Amino acid sequence: MAVNSPLPVAADLKPVAGIEIGFAQAGIKKPNRKDVLVMKLAPTATVAGVFTLNRFCAAPVQIAKAHLAAAKETGKPVVALLVNTGNANAGTGELGLSLANETCAALASQLGCEPSQILPFSTGVILEPLPAAKVIAGLPQAVAGLQADNWFNAAEAIMTTDTQPKAGSRTVTIGGHTVTMSGISKGAGMIKPNMATMLGYLALDAKVAQPVLDVLVKQVADQTFNCITIDGDTSTNDSFMLIATGAGSLEITSVESPEYRELAAAVTELSLFLAQAIVRDGEGATKFITITVEDAASVAEARKIAYSIGHSPLVKTAFFASDPNLGRILAAIGYAGVDDLDVSKLNLYLDDVWVAKNGGRNPDYQEADGQRVMQQSEILVRVKLARGDQAATVYTCDLSHDYVSINADYRS
Amino acid sequence: MAVNSPLPVAADLKPVAGIEIGFAQAGIKKPNRKDVLVMKLAPTATVAGVFTLNRFCAAPVQIAKAHLAAAKETGKPVVALLVNTGNANAGTGELGLSLANETCAALASQLGCEPSQILPFSTGVILEPLPAAKVIAGLPQAVAGLQADNWFNAAEAIMTTDTQPKAGSRTVTIGGHTVTMSGISKGAGMIKPNMATMLGYLALDAKVAQPVLDVLVKQVADQTFNCITIDGDTSTNDSFMLIATGAGSLEITSVESPEYRELAAAVTELSLFLAQAIVRDGEGATKFITITVEDAASVAEARKIAYSIGHSPLVKTAFFASDPNLGRILAAIGYAGVDDLDVSKLNLYLDDVWVAKNGGRNPDYQEADGQRVMQQSEILVRVKLARGDQAATVYTCDLSHDYVSINADYRS
Repeated sequence: MAVNSPLPVAADLKPVAGIEIGFAQAGIKKPNRKDVLVMKLAPTATVAGVFTLNRFCAAPVQIAKAHLAAAKETGKPVVALLVNTGNANAGTGELGLSLANETCAALASQLGCEPSQILPFSTGVILEPLPAAKVIAGLPQAVAGLQADNWFNAAEAIMTTDTQPKAGSRTVTIGGHTVTMSGISKGAGMIKPNMATMLGYLALDAKVAQPVLDVLVKQVADQTFNCITIDGDTSTNDSFMLIATGAGSLEITSVESPEYRELAAAVTELSLFLAQAIVRDGEGATKFITITVEDAASVAEARKIAYSIGHSPLVKTAFFASDPNLGRILAAIGYAGVDDLDVSKLNLYLDDVWVAKNGGRNPDYQEADGQRVMQQSEILVRVKLARGDQAATVYTCDLSHDYVSINADYRS
Repeated sequence: MAVNSPLPVAADLKPVAGIEIGFAQAGIKKPNRKDVLVMKLAPTATVAGVFTLNRFCAAPVQIAKAHLAAAKETGKPVVALLVNTGNANAGTGELGLSLANETCAALASQLGCEPSQILPFSTGVILEPLPAAKVIAGLPQAVAGLQADNWFNAAEAIMTTDTQPKAGSRTVTIGGHTVTMSGISKGAGMIKPNMATMLGYLALDAKVAQPVLDVLVKQVADQTFNCITIDGDTSTNDSFMLIATGAGSLEITSVESPEYRELAAAVTELSLFLAQAIVRDGEGATKFITITVEDAASVAEARKIAYSIGHSPLVKTAFFASDPNLGRILAAIGYAGVDDLDVSKLNLYLDDVWVAKNGGRNPDYQEADGQRVMQQSEILVRVKLARGDQAATVYTCDLSHDYVSINADYRS
């Protein structure tokens, strides 16, 4: 059960001109479950992505990166994205690369393109060989079913321990042109800055020059998918892909244009919705916590402190218990690694409640006020450092019994 | 229940000449519980300590550091250590310093010394004012009961969420001199490198010059108390104090002497026992995990990887479930932050089972073998990096339902 369930998944997910979606039940890990997804792109499409920084990055991540680079070099566009759940194809060495390549080759032959024009993605259990034959056996079904109006199925097809699909659509008007965008994402454990067992795909029907899209995907990820954490575990497979199909009338060729800024704002808004949905559906989550660190000397130190709070098991269990044991937040700030932090100037707020004043308990703070806020399902933790004018925000959830149950039983 | 409970607490804890111990039930947080401890030292004693690196270090930590420095400057030795549980006196600002000083002054007046000759320590809940009056009211009882043979009571008096007292004694012969040492420690959450809600006290009856003891305490902590982690939370109050009472016949004046090396080995051995006892009694712990990273380019990178594994909630829940979902260990290695790590040269062993070979699943690895080791209550995770000849070891425990229960209910 996600926080404030059900998640507001749009019932009216919009097709995006220039992208078709098909899926299959390939029985990769469990039967009768959508576990293979194909997203086929118009030849006008540009694609850009950000990937996990985990050194054990999965075979498909390595290949997707290489294929993206090849597309830029050769000018032969990306034709399709291929996603499977049930197996991460990570920690699988040379064999994993070879199996991922086999799936790309199989899809390429069905779509009449080269294997390097396919971007593969996998999510699921690590250190076990990809059942490539099952993935490949599912491809004809997925290809036969390709259609534009398939985003909800796409959202379902990439779920692992997610309890609910995550998807959204937006229509915006930029410079007189209508732009339609739809996106999907999945979590729900191993979520941490710089990607997680996190997959996100967002397509829009504008024409966006490749260098512009490359900038946009990083800018958006930095404000959205890279600001969430569930358990501090960065997965081997995280990817966020931005697809501009080029099928619409808006064309963006420069990051300096006002149209770019408007598009970036709209893509960021939908991406933040998709990223926050991952947290709301975090494994065992019962509360959605926003942590904002303000008046920092740099964004980096603000993020460091925000993540230190967001990763603390003691803080997270206190939220689960609705217990205003707020000293644990101070402790997490203190060990965040900001060595010259002067805690005597620090102030801490829980929503509108001023908890710590100048590094100590605010004399006016009443436990009942803290208790009231802790019982909410959505809580804002605000830290003011008095060191500068920079800030950062991180989104996280609490740590519950169900987190332990889910992760103790994941493979069974 | 600690791992392999009961912990092997020596029934025959040995008095250490030159140190007397008294305690009180002062009702600081709960009635009928030992919560104040006084350790009175012979005038010949030297004392050295290492303290939390948390920027929100507690008022007593700040004062203990200042009083230790004052003792060195003035030559007026430390007369007593004063420990209370039930309240950490952290995140308490100026008021906290003032209340801690009041307790030092009260004990000093009873022992006929200056307040700066008292070292204060507190552990318990953060962000709440120290009930100094209760501590002070307990002092006469503690002072009246001072006696040498009181180590087991000392171990009980510093417990918080610990399920069992942690204490040990050793007698060694160095250079023909008998040295007796006894120590106590407490956990059991907020345990992380560079101290935690961790208190450790070890006294020995040799005479050790102050500069030598200063080196020894750091060297020992680095090999013992700084190698344990339960939840990655570094507390505001951690302290490890080494006391050389000077009451015995051994005298050590140089770190270059063979006697120093023998003493260091003995102190390290007992300290490791006390540190590991904290992990075995970690909040909700059901398994004791030793993580060794070998063939690293530096100790720092070996520790980074060992801690990354030891802090991963996904790894820890897999241990709790006895589930050989060992890809999670690879993922934790991959995001440890060793940027140029070549995972294709990495090997992973679980006890005697070779799990990952050259970055992928070892073809000879059988799930049943992994399963067998995962069911043990004590498990060795061994990572070989093929980058050099440095190594590090970290001790941790699993993450269980009880961890969540204990920390969700801590204050109630």
